[in-house]
Amino acid sequence: MRGAAAGEGWPLDDRGAAYGDGLFETVLVRDGRPRLWDEHLARLARGCHVLGLPLPAEHRLAAPLAEAPSGLAVLKLMLTRGSGGRGYRAPATPAPRLRWQLAPFTPDVARWQEGVRVRHCALRLGIQPRLAGLKHLNRLENVLARAEWDDDEVAEGLLCDSDGRLVEATAMNLFWRRAGALETPRMDRCGVAGTLREALIERLEVREVDILPEALEAAEAVWLGNSVQGVWPVTRLDDAAGRPLLRWRLSASHRAFQAEAHRLLGYPLPDLN
Amino acid sequence: MRGAAAGEGWPLDDRGAAYGDGLFETVLVRDGRPRLWDEHLARLARGCHVLGLPLPAEHRLAAPLAEAPSGLAVLKLMLTRGSGGRGYRAPATPAPRLRWQLAPFTPDVARWQEGVRVRHCALRLGIQPRLAGLKHLNRLENVLARAEWDDDEVAEGLLCDSDGRLVEATAMNLFWRRAGALETPRMDRCGVAGTLREALIERLEVREVDILPEALEAAEAVWLGNSVQGVWPVTRLDDAAGRPLLRWRLSASHRAFQAEAHRLLGYPLPDLN
Repeated sequence: MRGAAAGEGWPLDDRGAAYGDGLFETVLVRDGRPRLWDEHLARLARGCHVLGLPLPAEHRLAAPLAEAPSGLAVLKLMLTRGSGGRGYRAPATPAPRLRWQLAPFTPDVARWQEGVRVRHCALRLGIQPRLAGLKHLNRLENVLARAEWDDDEVAEGLLCDSDGRLVEATAMNLFWRRAGALETPRMDRCGVAGTLREALIERLEVREVDILPEALEAAEAVWLGNSVQGVWPVTRLDDAAGRPLLRWRLSASHRAFQAEAHRLLGYPLPDLN
Repeated sequence: MRGAAAGEGWPLDDRGAAYGDGLFETVLVRDGRPRLWDEHLARLARGCHVLGLPLPAEHRLAAPLAEAPSGLAVLKLMLTRGSGGRGYRAPATPAPRLRWQLAPFTPDVARWQEGVRVRHCALRLGIQPRLAGLKHLNRLENVLARAEWDDDEVAEGLLCDSDGRLVEATAMNLFWRRAGALETPRMDRCGVAGTLREALIERLEVREVDILPEALEAAEAVWLGNSVQGVWPVTRLDDAAGRPLLRWRLSASHRAFQAEAHRLLGYPLPDLN
């Protein structure tokens, strides 16, 4: 794991550390070249607009790529409002602070291939349209949701909002095929609009829908995906107590969607079994 | 401003900086002695319980007090889950990180004396019962709400939750007297349960109520308060566009409530005018 400038952390009064007043991106990098870079920049720009931060110049955001190892790595970019202001009141002219970490990465090929078991989380996401879709630094809900299970057989947890609508998994977006159409939850009230999700919506005409979790009963195939891990077919869904609710058999339909996503990330296509 | 250990900030991978995975307290200190210390410890303990963090020993939390200047100061204690874990997943055995800042403090006597103008914020707080009442490090909503106005004549902004119920101000709790009874919004869905609020509820039989902002029309007196600033009478409430909605004349009733709060903080009693 390397960080910029080597060993440099956050000052005690950084507003990112104090209030989560900032944004981050985790970018898949292969041989120093980022994947879905435009989508990452676009989301960071949206976040900067909402938080009232100046977007750093692209050459600054891309500079850490020069330090990337060969092969696969994950670049984490963190941008905070920096120091200053009075309490929650932001400084009139923020001096944002940009930090990064680079770590080698190995995707979980078994999850690509065999699919994963997931469960519902009991925690409901609070509804906050002002922050919806952004990858901001206020992630306690995700941390609490991830703490709901400890069984390594369970790969992810599904989250609903406080009105009971399906939103996402703790660190991945959710997709399914129903009556032949690809769908994913809308991301306008809470949740993180993943960059892989953005790219797939555009390329595969994925419909963004407002939906309760029961709708998954009618799904022919279900996937989780993000821009680092790629796409995992979901083969089993448990309830929040760990009891099995639904199962799906891996199919060619699973593989076709995965193939599209993996093309975008430069990942291999899983075997059709 | 002094911080522990001098100059020491946060490592790049601290989970407080990464996810807001932690808690804080801001404690009024007079001549090295904290006010409402038991209430601060109790809230920190509640937060640690919810986040699954071990509560640091009291002598560690109190150690910075030895560095306090004479006179008034504010001690900010910050406790994070430390480093480690995998993404949102917390380490099985967290090694929490405790940091502090001490700064001299001067309360705003004019606001005690003359009262303040406040306004409604347009932002609605997301409903998250799991985190309600805690002073955790996910404070982007407060930052965005505080950014809604820039007029120094406006001292605070009132916040409702996404169901429209009155909750708090951006950095203070809200109290009012209606039909002779003292009331404050319930804090079980969102918001920060201030330590001064806790102490006043106990001592003055303040009722915690579920209420819409229109209820303030029937209020005979309204106050904002926290454990650092003391209590400000509210003399004018504007809407989210800055247009005047309601006004209150300072009265002996205002002063009686202020006097109780200020006794708890060791602050002088404002003149009765």
